[in-house]
Amino acid sequence: MPIPPIQKDDIRIIPLGGVEEVGRNMTVIETADDIVIIDCGIQFQEEETPGIDFILPNTKYLEKNKDKIRAIIITHGHLDHIGGIPYIMPLIGNPPNYTTNLTMLMIKKRQEEFSHLPPLDLKVIEKEDTVRLGRLSLRFFSVTHTIPDSMGVIVETPYGSIVHTGDLKLDHIGGIPTEHEEEQFAQFKDEKVLLLMADSTNVERPGFSIPESMVHRNLEEIIKNATGRLFVGTFASQIDRLVHVITVAEKYKKKVVIDGRSMKTNIEIARLAGICKPQKDTIIPIEEMGSYPPERIVALVTGAQGDEFAVLMRVANKSHRHLILNTRDTVVLSSSIVPGNERSVQKLKDNLSRQGARIIHYQVSDVHSSGHANADETLWIHKKINPKFFIPIHGYHYMLRVHTDIAKKAGILEQNIIIPDNSMIIDIENNGGRMVARKEMAPKGLVMVDGFTVGDMQEVVIRDRQMLAQDGIFMVVVTIDVNSGKLRKSPDLISRGFVYIRESQEMFKDVREVVRKTVEKTIVGMHPINFDYLKNIVTDEVSRYLFQKTNKRPIVIPVILGV
Amino acid sequence: MPIPPIQKDDIRIIPLGGVEEVGRNMTVIETADDIVIIDCGIQFQEEETPGIDFILPNTKYLEKNKDKIRAIIITHGHLDHIGGIPYIMPLIGNPPNYTTNLTMLMIKKRQEEFSHLPPLDLKVIEKEDTVRLGRLSLRFFSVTHTIPDSMGVIVETPYGSIVHTGDLKLDHIGGIPTEHEEEQFAQFKDEKVLLLMADSTNVERPGFSIPESMVHRNLEEIIKNATGRLFVGTFASQIDRLVHVITVAEKYKKKVVIDGRSMKTNIEIARLAGICKPQKDTIIPIEEMGSYPPERIVALVTGAQGDEFAVLMRVANKSHRHLILNTRDTVVLSSSIVPGNERSVQKLKDNLSRQGARIIHYQVSDVHSSGHANADETLWIHKKINPKFFIPIHGYHYMLRVHTDIAKKAGILEQNIIIPDNSMIIDIENNGGRMVARKEMAPKGLVMVDGFTVGDMQEVVIRDRQMLAQDGIFMVVVTIDVNSGKLRKSPDLISRGFVYIRESQEMFKDVREVVRKTVEKTIVGMHPINFDYLKNIVTDEVSRYLFQKTNKRPIVIPVILGV
Repeated sequence: MPIPPIQKDDIRIIPLGGVEEVGRNMTVIETADDIVIIDCGIQFQEEETPGIDFILPNTKYLEKNKDKIRAIIITHGHLDHIGGIPYIMPLIGNPPNYTTNLTMLMIKKRQEEFSHLPPLDLKVIEKEDTVRLGRLSLRFFSVTHTIPDSMGVIVETPYGSIVHTGDLKLDHIGGIPTEHEEEQFAQFKDEKVLLLMADSTNVERPGFSIPESMVHRNLEEIIKNATGRLFVGTFASQIDRLVHVITVAEKYKKKVVIDGRSMKTNIEIARLAGICKPQKDTIIPIEEMGSYPPERIVALVTGAQGDEFAVLMRVANKSHRHLILNTRDTVVLSSSIVPGNERSVQKLKDNLSRQGARIIHYQVSDVHSSGHANADETLWIHKKINPKFFIPIHGYHYMLRVHTDIAKKAGILEQNIIIPDNSMIIDIENNGGRMVARKEMAPKGLVMVDGFTVGDMQEVVIRDRQMLAQDGIFMVVVTIDVNSGKLRKSPDLISRGFVYIRESQEMFKDVREVVRKTVEKTIVGMHPINFDYLKNIVTDEVSRYLFQKTNKRPIVIPVILGV
Repeated sequence: MPIPPIQKDDIRIIPLGGVEEVGRNMTVIETADDIVIIDCGIQFQEEETPGIDFILPNTKYLEKNKDKIRAIIITHGHLDHIGGIPYIMPLIGNPPNYTTNLTMLMIKKRQEEFSHLPPLDLKVIEKEDTVRLGRLSLRFFSVTHTIPDSMGVIVETPYGSIVHTGDLKLDHIGGIPTEHEEEQFAQFKDEKVLLLMADSTNVERPGFSIPESMVHRNLEEIIKNATGRLFVGTFASQIDRLVHVITVAEKYKKKVVIDGRSMKTNIEIARLAGICKPQKDTIIPIEEMGSYPPERIVALVTGAQGDEFAVLMRVANKSHRHLILNTRDTVVLSSSIVPGNERSVQKLKDNLSRQGARIIHYQVSDVHSSGHANADETLWIHKKINPKFFIPIHGYHYMLRVHTDIAKKAGILEQNIIIPDNSMIIDIENNGGRMVARKEMAPKGLVMVDGFTVGDMQEVVIRDRQMLAQDGIFMVVVTIDVNSGKLRKSPDLISRGFVYIRESQEMFKDVREVVRKTVEKTIVGMHPINFDYLKNIVTDEVSRYLFQKTNKRPIVIPVILGV
């Protein structure tokens, strides 16, 4: 269905990603004259997309309308908000990127890996700035998340403001938001908010989230009391926490070792941004670790998710050059387990504890908190912003649905809420009078990054990978003497990922016979030989035979040559 | 290393499975004359073993010593305790299986799928029975788990008893075990326990587990108050809970629909065992569901884990013949999420809620409890059994390690504890004086069930599947005119799971040229052609070229024919 162009006085919202998943966040705000985009993230590979590096929002709609794009606003420096930039900017005319200082530095750092690309137009905004983009005015507000310099966005329209929260939680003490939060959200008291789009990631969780300040206190206790080396594994993106660990280590006269590429990179960025200011001898090279008593060593390392090549996993597998654990060591896994990583983290815990290290993880102590608001925090935010319309974003469909229950509790009318899908076109019509989801959708095929390949045509490739992973492949190579109609020699069989070949010799012998008979029977009296037809027959016969013998369905590929 | 035979007065323990994972439980107890085995389970496929149906304990040690095997004892009817029976019994001389009535019925039912096997020798034991096996005497005690008729095993030895708990938790009210539990465990007061082997699955969780009685109460409330149809999704193996749902539905004059093969099977078994006695018109066929008002329908269905073909998933995907959800329906997901299933369950919740159904799951209401004891329950059990030696079983390595902390708290000496690995040989020597882990291990290669193939030689096959899943396969078919040393025609390229072929024509053209040049250059002056050498060169060149162009490493297979 062709997408109707936006009407003169309407406002169009298109969430291009992040509303059927956690990740690849991107939201389009369009008026008759202008388009402003919020965020440009990636989603990490899922089990269903083997071999894929990650998934991008589908930006075909933007590519068609790139003349209208005035800017892209980046709310904070996490990969599910900035990761798509190197891939997507070139497709949409490389518009200016507006963001805060730390986020800008993170974008810049990542861009170094894509040196063939034209430079980005990066613009740093201060909290109080008003940015004019085409006929739109934008303002910003800072929010609490697990990375500093996170912000929400306010887009002014003639019918009221559009508020996009980015990712956020609240800083609070026992469920009472801090004064700072009260101040931040006080500005909405006099703001007529037309539309709110807000983070849904943790709305299923009741109450208030664990405040990061509590995690900080617990980590401080652990660092203070450590009587051996302390390894703190966390997401490198938890910049607030990294800085806290360094600061506390310094306070207790300990040395800090930093290991893992992303960890080093992010601490370097935090120093550049002036967020992290260690004394000059606090951070020591890993090689010097042995020169200090164990209780004076705190190491910040990657790999708390059990990622294959990250530091903790190499330590667990005893393949790390410098780190060998002993029974005096403590490992803090200061992160939750990303869904899908449960088994890797189990393996990590198993192998770390095998070497005698004590393990502290978030299920036994509050050494991690999420960056997203729970149900009651979300309710508080809704009441403060008090919008007319509401679109839940950032989460799987069920999370968005739970979020609408909170919105209704905050007083938003059911008919003023739309639960979006990716690429849904939502128009605010009648001078802000009503919000409707159009039947027409923007293009929404999965855009995958697979090595150097980027595109939405990989689905057939993925299906093959899934089949190969289950049952493998079985090739039959046949050479036919076209004059005699006989096989020149016994068929060659090549199999990968199907059965253990050495123990299947008997079956392979039988398959050769099946192939020979099938070919010779099929081509009797066939002049010339119809090779495509013959291949189909051979595929069918071999597949059937193999399934009957093994209960497996490998992909069967016949190669048939006539000589 | 050859395994030294057991010494005359020693007792040998070999955990063949279940101590480096959750699943494939099997423990061997051996004396100079006799072997008794406890449990015979499977472990379900993990992400690292694509295509595999499940993993069995490695029983090579038992196969070599089958003349000594007197019996196998099965503690309860879950697949991680009975699933290996059809595969393993024929290998170890089909010894008698001792178990309780319900477990026996479950084993029998499963065996129907393996009709080619000789019949099992199934012996039903009553709680008070003493069973003489060779020179060993065995007694049993009932334990609380999520399936009725679960038991622990007591093996009498001259030096004291060996106690194996099977899987268990405690029935309790607010952390005080019930009178029934007190009675059950009172028998150990006068028992001299030499060795305890106990369940470690949930020892990481603090306090006491949620008692099943609380889940029952909550489900009763939900059933009583349902104003539309109620779908209860749970593990079919939670027989206690299934029976409870039927009983409560009957109490509130509701009809029960049962859907899903394993659900129907297990309720049939529960009826056979006399555990479930519904009135004759309580359970109705699914086709008659529409004849009753929605609030009188309770359905027990499979698929709470998001399993691909189970009932709830088919409902979610709108591919179920009889069930179409509406906004008056409620779905209770009365199970926890098995690690690795998070994304499937998320998809399930997304798609069920898309159809407007209300969802109640264990994270928002106590509609599920695990069948395994938490830390404080485990401590209570240790204190009651009060053994000299302790071997933690049933769990990943880290869980076993945490379990030893509890054991020490209960007063067991550190030197009397061994944390086992699969196939570790543990001997109790010196007339029960000390317990040692031998350096020698019983065979421990992974035994996988992969279609009809069962064996420990599949590891190479699995590695290929992993590679195929990541980057696919790329075949090059070359025909050489051996006289001229030239290619007869341009090489054929076949690719699956690598790149989208239609968008890669340019690259494929270049690959053909790379192949042609490589072949012709390599065979200049080569008489006769060394085809193996040539294949290696072609593989290397093509792999390198493809990696450079795509950043992917497909398995490259050259097929080279000389004519």
